[in-house]
Amino acid sequence: MASYIFTNILGSFVFDDKFKIIDSGTEKTLKNKHKDLKEPDEKDLKKILKVFKNNRFFKDFYKNNLSITKKLVSESVSKDQLIKEAIKNIDDLEKVINILTKRLRDWYSLHAPEFSGYIEDNEKFCELITSKSRTELLKEIRVDIKDSMGKDLPKKDLKPIKDLASEIDKIFNLKNSQEEYIKEAMKELCPNLLEIAGPVIGARLIEEAGSLKHLSLVPASTIQLYGAEKALFRHIRNKKNKSPKFGLIFNHPYIQKNIKNSGKAARVLADKISIAVKVDYFNGKFIGDKLVKDLEAKFR
Amino acid sequence: MASYIFTNILGSFVFDDKFKIIDSGTEKTLKNKHKDLKEPDEKDLKKILKVFKNNRFFKDFYKNNLSITKKLVSESVSKDQLIKEAIKNIDDLEKVINILTKRLRDWYSLHAPEFSGYIEDNEKFCELITSKSRTELLKEIRVDIKDSMGKDLPKKDLKPIKDLASEIDKIFNLKNSQEEYIKEAMKELCPNLLEIAGPVIGARLIEEAGSLKHLSLVPASTIQLYGAEKALFRHIRNKKNKSPKFGLIFNHPYIQKNIKNSGKAARVLADKISIAVKVDYFNGKFIGDKLVKDLEAKFR
Repeated sequence: MASYIFTNILGSFVFDDKFKIIDSGTEKTLKNKHKDLKEPDEKDLKKILKVFKNNRFFKDFYKNNLSITKKLVSESVSKDQLIKEAIKNIDDLEKVINILTKRLRDWYSLHAPEFSGYIEDNEKFCELITSKSRTELLKEIRVDIKDSMGKDLPKKDLKPIKDLASEIDKIFNLKNSQEEYIKEAMKELCPNLLEIAGPVIGARLIEEAGSLKHLSLVPASTIQLYGAEKALFRHIRNKKNKSPKFGLIFNHPYIQKNIKNSGKAARVLADKISIAVKVDYFNGKFIGDKLVKDLEAKFR
Repeated sequence: MASYIFTNILGSFVFDDKFKIIDSGTEKTLKNKHKDLKEPDEKDLKKILKVFKNNRFFKDFYKNNLSITKKLVSESVSKDQLIKEAIKNIDDLEKVINILTKRLRDWYSLHAPEFSGYIEDNEKFCELITSKSRTELLKEIRVDIKDSMGKDLPKKDLKPIKDLASEIDKIFNLKNSQEEYIKEAMKELCPNLLEIAGPVIGARLIEEAGSLKHLSLVPASTIQLYGAEKALFRHIRNKKNKSPKFGLIFNHPYIQKNIKNSGKAARVLADKISIAVKVDYFNGKFIGDKLVKDLEAKFR
């Protein structure tokens, strides 16, 4: 008398030769309990699958399928997704800082218009507004307080302005700590990319590609032009427009240093980044320091 | 021998009958020192002004003119300008909160997607993320933690998410304290407008009009439609489009309460606001409570 063993997402089952279920449990215990268990061939399988078409299994199938899917979705959350969210958040924070600092400059110009436009750097501007008085700030830019076109505001009118400045200051701090987080996360996931591209450009490249995996599969020329899609398609539509030389790697210090040879520098840098990402994705050794050295040797 | 006294922004001067300066100082001391000082008539004035065309006065003219202009600019900074900046800042803060909460929901959905879309209120959402754990949040919406499609993140990956949530929380607090500031400022500048329109709508009306003065001069129908300019001009260009019934006063609780009669309610409310602003601008008494009573009686 032949008996068959069959396993699906509901568990393992033993069938007799008339294809009735005579036992169920885990595959291991069933194999210990029953002797001479056969794997069903194609013909047997059809009969076995018919058994499972019975309504009484439907609820269990649905339940187990759902929980497996949920588990798969949950497991698909990977480090690069976290990095992508963090870098998108940094972009948001930059946008937010610009909106609020513009307002702060406008507002403060009622108090000291001479100073409001003086310091371009947003971070330093907010810090000074928080920590120094109007007199001190005007002294710093050598404007006599009697010559100022601003109005000396009472404390209660100054408070909301200073509150805004110190809030922007906090957002700057948050941005810095988020960058630190990206750095730490990339140290685990892609140390080579981190070494050669830095945390911000590296994370932006991952975000642009969609994942570290995808970034490791695209050619170096794609990496070179990520973020310059608009200019590229303008060039493709109409050859009169020059082809772009770089996208978001433009802010890399290496390009900035070799700005006269920026086209060549971008190509070399994208090559090195491409190598770094491939090594990272396939869990290779740390070669970031060597890549940086190669890079620096190119323009000496 | 006749001598003349003449005053301009450089000070006061005494001229002899040959129109030479023989003395200068303040008007008062000169009048004490010299007797028989005459005000110059038109013919004399022409000769006196010629004297001041001399180059040696130019520098002083320039200096004094500039300092007077600066003083005027400085004095033109008024309470309503401060209120305008504050209300524009509140709009900015709302924009900023929306940007950042959207990112927070996205980011947190890697951890507990079931919760991320559950609570619509941004302030409450951020508060809960800051103060409660994933298990607690999922329990609140009756999702078993085993069924969650999110990934249980380690502390270091959760930190930047919680940091973002608590930052948004702080921006909410800032927004509330700025609203409180507007309220205090309006209590001084326009207590009647504050009473009938509330701080946010009142301040937005001042901002829309440009100043309290201008707001006191426009007709009630303009107040009714501030903020609905787009719809109004669409109606004017093409009569097929209905004329708008209200602009930014739409959010006033009075309109919300009488939403079935919103057109009439808007007209009545705009009338009362218009009266309140006129009384405020011309420094009348506090009649806000009476206006509110009138308003409530209209729909009883």
